[in-house]
Amino acid sequence: MNKKGFASDNNSGIHPDILKAIYETNNGHTIAYGDDDFTEKSKQKFKEHFGNNAEVFFVFNGTAANVLSLKAATQPHNAIICSELAHINVDECGAPERFTGCKLLTCTTTNGKITVAEIAKHLHGIGFQHHAQPKIISISQPAELGTVYSPAEIKTIAQFAHANNLLLHVDGARLANAAASLGLPFKKFTADVGVDVLSFGGTKNGMMYGEAVVLLNPELCENFMYTRKQAMQLASKMRFISAQFIAYLSNNQCIETATHSNKMAKLLESKIKEIPQIKITQKVESNAVFALIPPEIYDDLQKEYFFYLWDEKNYEARWMCSFDTTEDDINKFVELIKKLIRRS
Amino acid sequence: MNKKGFASDNNSGIHPDILKAIYETNNGHTIAYGDDDFTEKSKQKFKEHFGNNAEVFFVFNGTAANVLSLKAATQPHNAIICSELAHINVDECGAPERFTGCKLLTCTTTNGKITVAEIAKHLHGIGFQHHAQPKIISISQPAELGTVYSPAEIKTIAQFAHANNLLLHVDGARLANAAASLGLPFKKFTADVGVDVLSFGGTKNGMMYGEAVVLLNPELCENFMYTRKQAMQLASKMRFISAQFIAYLSNNQCIETATHSNKMAKLLESKIKEIPQIKITQKVESNAVFALIPPEIYDDLQKEYFFYLWDEKNYEARWMCSFDTTEDDINKFVELIKKLIRRS
Amino acid sequence: MNKKGFASDNNSGIHPDILKAIYETNNGHTIAYGDDDFTEKSKQKFKEHFGNNAEVFFVFNGTAANVLSLKAATQPHNAIICSELAHINVDECGAPERFTGCKLLTCTTTNGKITVAEIAKHLHGIGFQHHAQPKIISISQPAELGTVYSPAEIKTIAQFAHANNLLLHVDGARLANAAASLGLPFKKFTADVGVDVLSFGGTKNGMMYGEAVVLLNPELCENFMYTRKQAMQLASKMRFISAQFIAYLSNNQCIETATHSNKMAKLLESKIKEIPQIKITQKVESNAVFALIPPEIYDDLQKEYFFYLWDEKNYEARWMCSFDTTEDDINKFVELIKKLIRRS
Amino acid sequence: MNKKGFASDNNSGIHPDILKAIYETNNGHTIAYGDDDFTEKSKQKFKEHFGNNAEVFFVFNGTAANVLSLKAATQPHNAIICSELAHINVDECGAPERFTGCKLLTCTTTNGKITVAEIAKHLHGIGFQHHAQPKIISISQPAELGTVYSPAEIKTIAQFAHANNLLLHVDGARLANAAASLGLPFKKFTADVGVDVLSFGGTKNGMMYGEAVVLLNPELCENFMYTRKQAMQLASKMRFISAQFIAYLSNNQCIETATHSNKMAKLLESKIKEIPQIKITQKVESNAVFALIPPEIYDDLQKEYFFYLWDEKNYEARWMCSFDTTEDDINKFVELIKKLIRRS
Repeated sequence: MNKKGFASDNNSGIHPDILKAIYETNNGHTIAYGDDDFTEKSKQKFKEHFGNNAEVFFVFNGTAANVLSLKAATQPHNAIICSELAHINVDECGAPERFTGCKLLTCTTTNGKITVAEIAKHLHGIGFQHHAQPKIISISQPAELGTVYSPAEIKTIAQFAHANNLLLHVDGARLANAAASLGLPFKKFTADVGVDVLSFGGTKNGMMYGEAVVLLNPELCENFMYTRKQAMQLASKMRFISAQFIAYLSNNQCIETATHSNKMAKLLESKIKEIPQIKITQKVESNAVFALIPPEIYDDLQKEYFFYLWDEKNYEARWMCSFDTTEDDINKFVELIKKLIRRS
Repeated sequence: MNKKGFASDNNSGIHPDILKAIYETNNGHTIAYGDDDFTEKSKQKFKEHFGNNAEVFFVFNGTAANVLSLKAATQPHNAIICSELAHINVDECGAPERFTGCKLLTCTTTNGKITVAEIAKHLHGIGFQHHAQPKIISISQPAELGTVYSPAEIKTIAQFAHANNLLLHVDGARLANAAASLGLPFKKFTADVGVDVLSFGGTKNGMMYGEAVVLLNPELCENFMYTRKQAMQLASKMRFISAQFIAYLSNNQCIETATHSNKMAKLLESKIKEIPQIKITQKVESNAVFALIPPEIYDDLQKEYFFYLWDEKNYEARWMCSFDTTEDDINKFVELIKKLIRRS
Repeated sequence: MNKKGFASDNNSGIHPDILKAIYETNNGHTIAYGDDDFTEKSKQKFKEHFGNNAEVFFVFNGTAANVLSLKAATQPHNAIICSELAHINVDECGAPERFTGCKLLTCTTTNGKITVAEIAKHLHGIGFQHHAQPKIISISQPAELGTVYSPAEIKTIAQFAHANNLLLHVDGARLANAAASLGLPFKKFTADVGVDVLSFGGTKNGMMYGEAVVLLNPELCENFMYTRKQAMQLASKMRFISAQFIAYLSNNQCIETATHSNKMAKLLESKIKEIPQIKITQKVESNAVFALIPPEIYDDLQKEYFFYLWDEKNYEARWMCSFDTTEDDINKFVELIKKLIRRS
Repeated sequence: MNKKGFASDNNSGIHPDILKAIYETNNGHTIAYGDDDFTEKSKQKFKEHFGNNAEVFFVFNGTAANVLSLKAATQPHNAIICSELAHINVDECGAPERFTGCKLLTCTTTNGKITVAEIAKHLHGIGFQHHAQPKIISISQPAELGTVYSPAEIKTIAQFAHANNLLLHVDGARLANAAASLGLPFKKFTADVGVDVLSFGGTKNGMMYGEAVVLLNPELCENFMYTRKQAMQLASKMRFISAQFIAYLSNNQCIETATHSNKMAKLLESKIKEIPQIKITQKVESNAVFALIPPEIYDDLQKEYFFYLWDEKNYEARWMCSFDTTEDDINKFVELIKKLIRRS
C-alpha cells in the first residue's frame, strides 16, 4: 500500500464508489464523444444541482475547465480579473493567456478572497483602445488559501460585475468542499447569487479524471462544443467521465467525501494548534491547513511526508486532507512533527 | 448489455486487462502530475518498444497527441504537410492550426497514403518570406482509409523529409493495428525508419483514455513538459494513464487485441464480398472496412446499427471492428444486410 | 531615376497627389491614434463611396486588412472559404490562421474566381463538432489572376452566403482597378450586392502605406478598435494615413490612376498578342497580364526587367502595370521581348 | 496651423529632414518588401550605430517592435519580466500576450526603472512545469516615467539576466532621448552592456511611421523574417521606412532633435518649479515632465491644451516635449497655468 500524505488531494486515488460506477458502465458499445445515455443522464444530474439553466460540458482536467470557462466569456482583447494567488494566474503555465489571448489583471489578497475594492482598481481603462478590456472576474471557491466565500460575498461580487458589464466565473475545483463547509446546496452559492460560469471539479475529491464546465448564463453556450474540440478536450469514451459524475452527484456522495476531508483538516488544525512552535496562518474552512513550521524540522518531515511549501522563505506549509485521510494518518503525522520538534 | 456495432472503435469500452490494471493501481497516495513510479515504469516500457531514445509524454486524447507532437517540431510560421484526408486536417476542428499557428498543406490521395511526389509540390515556397515554411510531414499509420504503410514506404518519406530539412510525424492512433498487420515490432516501422515524433494511441484499442507523444528525435523534447501543461494536457492523477499503458505494452496485450480486430475486419470483408450488391473500396489492412452500399438499405441498416458514411454522396460506409467484436456480431450484421438487400 | 518594370504594382512609388496630401497635413500637432480631424474627414469620404453604414478602420498593410476583416467575423473554431490561389491562402505566411485561429478551406479555380458550386462542397460539416465551422467566404476583387467579378457574380455568392448563415469578405487590395474595369462606383459591387466586410487597398495604386477595413455589416464593428490595437495595427500618427485616403477618394483620383494602369495592361496585352511565341493565359480585366513565355528568353528578360513567374514549371509570367507605367515603358519592354525571341 | 501641445510626442508631425528623405526616395520603381538598396543602406547605418552584429528588421509601429522582439526570444510557455508600468504591460491591449502566448510578470517601481531585486522574485518557479518559465526581461529606456537607466544599471540587469539564462530586451521607443540624455552613442548603453534585442523607435522623435527591431544576439534572427510577415508587419513599399531611418541615423539628426526635446523638458521643468502649487514628481531626464497640478485648474487647462493624467486620482499630469516644441510654446503654456492658478 502506498503511504498516504498531506501534499495534495490530487495524490489520492479513486473513491471506491467512483471506480464501481466506471466498472458498471463498461458494458458493450455506446456512441462516442458524448452522444450516449450516460452523458445525457449526467447532464440531468447537473440540472438537479445547479438549476435548469445549467448547461454542462465535460473536459479532462481543471486547467481546461478554467480556460474554457473563460474562453466562453471572452474575446482576445479582454482582460480577466483574479486574485494574484489564483490557480489560473500562478499554476497553469500561462494556459489562460495562451488559449484565450486575454490579459490577467490581479488583485492582492491576504486571505485568498478578493474584494470589490480591489477589483474596481482595474476598471479605469474601460473604453480606451490601448488597454485590455476587463470582461470577467474569476474567483476560486474555496480560495487558494482554503478559505470559503459566503453566498453574500459572492453575490456582492456578482452584482458589482453585472453592474459593470462584467461576468463572474468560479473556479470550483473543490466546490464540494465549499458546499460541505457552508452546509448549502451548490445552487445557493452559485446560480442563485449570480455566478455566470463555473469550473466544477471532482478529481481532487475522489474522481479519476474529468471536470465540468457549467454554463449558468445561456449566452455563453453557443459555440462551446466547437471550442472544446478545438481545445483538445473532447473525450471519445465520454461515458466514463459521465458515469463518474453521475455517481459523484448522486446519494450525496461528493458532499460526504468532502465533509470528511474538511473534518480531517479541522482535526489536523486542532492537533497542530497544541504545538506552540507551529502557527496556523489561515482559517481552516475547507480541506487545507496552512502553517508556519520550524525550519529545523523541515528536512526530516519532508523525508517521511512529502509536502509543498506555500511560502518558501517563511516555511509556510500547505497540508491537504483527502477523502481517504484517516484519524490515524493525522495522529501519526502530528506525532512525527512533535517528535522532530522535541529532537531539534 | 449495450449492443455492439461497427460505427467506431471509440464506441467500445475498456478492455478487462486495462480495467484490472487501473483497479490494481488504485492504492494509497502517489505524487501527482507524473512524478510517480507507475509513470516511470511506463516510460521504460516505451523505451523497450521504441528504443532508448524514446521520450514519452502522456496526454488525454488523440487530438492532443497530434497537436502537441506537431507543436514540438514547429514555430507558428511553419507549415505541416499531410493528406487531405488526415485526421489533423479534417476531424480536429482546426485544433492544429489553433495551437501551433501553422498552416496545413494537403496532398491528394486515393488510398489514404501520401507520396513523396505529392509532398514535393509544397516545397517551392521554402525561403520566401510570404509563404508558410514547411517543417514537418504528418502521415497516419494506418491511414484514414485503413491502409498500412510498409516500413519501406515510411523510410522513403522520412529520407525525403530529412533531405529537405523536414521532420516526420506519425499519427499512430491505431498503431497497434498497423503493427499487427505488418507483423512487426513498433520500432521497425517507426524509430528504425526515421520517424521523428509519434502519436501513440490506445483508446481505440481498449484503453479508457490517455494517449502518448513519443519523441524519437531528442531535439524535440526540450520544453515539452511546459507545452503540455500550457496545452491543458497535464493529468493530475497521471498514474492511471501510466498503469493503462504498462498493461497495454506488456504481455503482447495491445498486439493481441489489435490482431483480433484486424482479423474481424478481414472476416467482415470476406463475408461482405459474397454480396454482389456491395463493393469493398479499399484494401482491408487493419480494422476498417470501406464499402459502397445500396442506398435503399441505408435507412433500415442505420436503424439497427448506427454507422458513419465516409462518402455521403456515394453511400460509402466505414465499418470499424473493435477488440470486442465477435464472429457472432459479424454474422448477425451481415445477415441483416443480406436480408435488407433481399427485401429491397 | 530607378527603372520602371512590370514585376509588381508594389514596386512603384507614391503618386504625387498623395505625397502632396501628406505634405499639406504635416502641420503642427494633432491628437494621435485617430482622434483627429483628418481621420474624421476620411471616414466621411468612405461613407460617400460605400454608404452610410460603412465603418472604416485604417491599418498598415493589406495582410492586416484581410486578417482583421476576417477576425471581425469569426471565432477560432470557424473556417474561412476562399480560392486556393487567394492571397490569404498563399501569400501571407499563415497570418490568417495565426491571428484568427481559423482553418482555411479552399476552392479550385481556373480563372481566379470561385463559384457557389465549389463553395458548397465545404458546407457538409456544419453542425458537427469535429469540423471547423465555415463562417465567412473571402473573394478577391480583382481576383489573383487579374479577372474581375461582375456585380451579379458577387451578389450570387453573397446570397448563397447569407442563405447559409455565412458572411462575405472581399479582398479589395486593388478595388479601384475593379471599379475602373467595371465602370461602376464602389458601392454598386460591394455594399449594394451584399458584401459584409472589405479590405480596401491603396498602396498598389499610388499610396505610400495604409489600408482600410470597411465594415459594411454593423454587427462586425463592436470590438474592432481593440482588436486592431492588439493586432499591432494602430498607427500613432494616423493623420498621415487618413490624409492619403482623403486624397485617394477625392476628385476621382484613385479611379483615374487605376484606369490608367488598366489601360496600360490592355496595351501590353495587345502588343504581346502580336507575338506568336507568347500566349496570354487570362482575360485582361484589370492591371495584370498573365502570359506563357518561351523558356529560352527567360534569363535574359529577367536581367533587364525583374518579374515573377506565376507558374514556374510552365514559364507563366505575371506582369503588373502601375499608375506610373507609360506607353514608352511598354514599348521598350515589348521590343526587348521581340529582340530576345528573334535571337533565341 | 494646428496648435502645439504637451499631450504626446506622437502628436507632433514629421520632421522636415525626414519628409525630405521620403520625397527624394520617391523615384521610379524599386523591388518591394525590403529587397531594395535603401533598405540595404539603412541596415548599414544600424550597424554603424549598434555594431556589426546588429541585424535590423523594420516594422510599422512600436507595439509591433516590442511584440516581435519578445517573440524572437520566447516560446509560448515562457514569461516576460517587466515593470508594472511598462508600455508592453499597460498600453498595448494585451498584444504581447496575444502574439507571444507568454505571461507577463511585473515588478513594482517608483521611478519607472526596475531592479535585480524585484526581478529575482519571479525566478522561483523555474523548472516547475506548472509555472510559465521566465525567459526575457524587458526594460524601457527611457523608462515610462521619463527616467533614464545608466549604462551600469543596464549592465547589472543584463549580467543578472545572462547568469540566470534569461535575455534582455530594451523598449527604445525614445532611445534617442536616452542617448541625448546620457551623452553617449547608442552602442555604449545597448550592445556594449549586454542588451540582446532592442525596439528602436523614431516616430516619437520626428519620423512619420516605422520602427526597427534590432537583434544584437545573432541566435534570435533565424526565423524573424517569417515571423514579421505572419505578424502582418512586412511593409510592401519598404524603401520609405528605410529612407526615413537613413536620414534619422545620419548627420546626428535624431540626437539633435532628441537633445532639443529633452532641453525643452528641462526648460518646462525649471519654469514649473517656480510655481509653488505644482510639484514635479519625477526626475526630468528625457522629454517628459510629471507634475501634480491643482485639481481646480484641470478643466480649464485641458480646454486649451489637451493632455493626459498619468495618475487620475492625484491629478498627476504627464507633459511631453517634442522635436518641434519651442520656448515660446512653453512660455505660453506656463503663463496659462499661472493665470489659472491665480484665478482659482
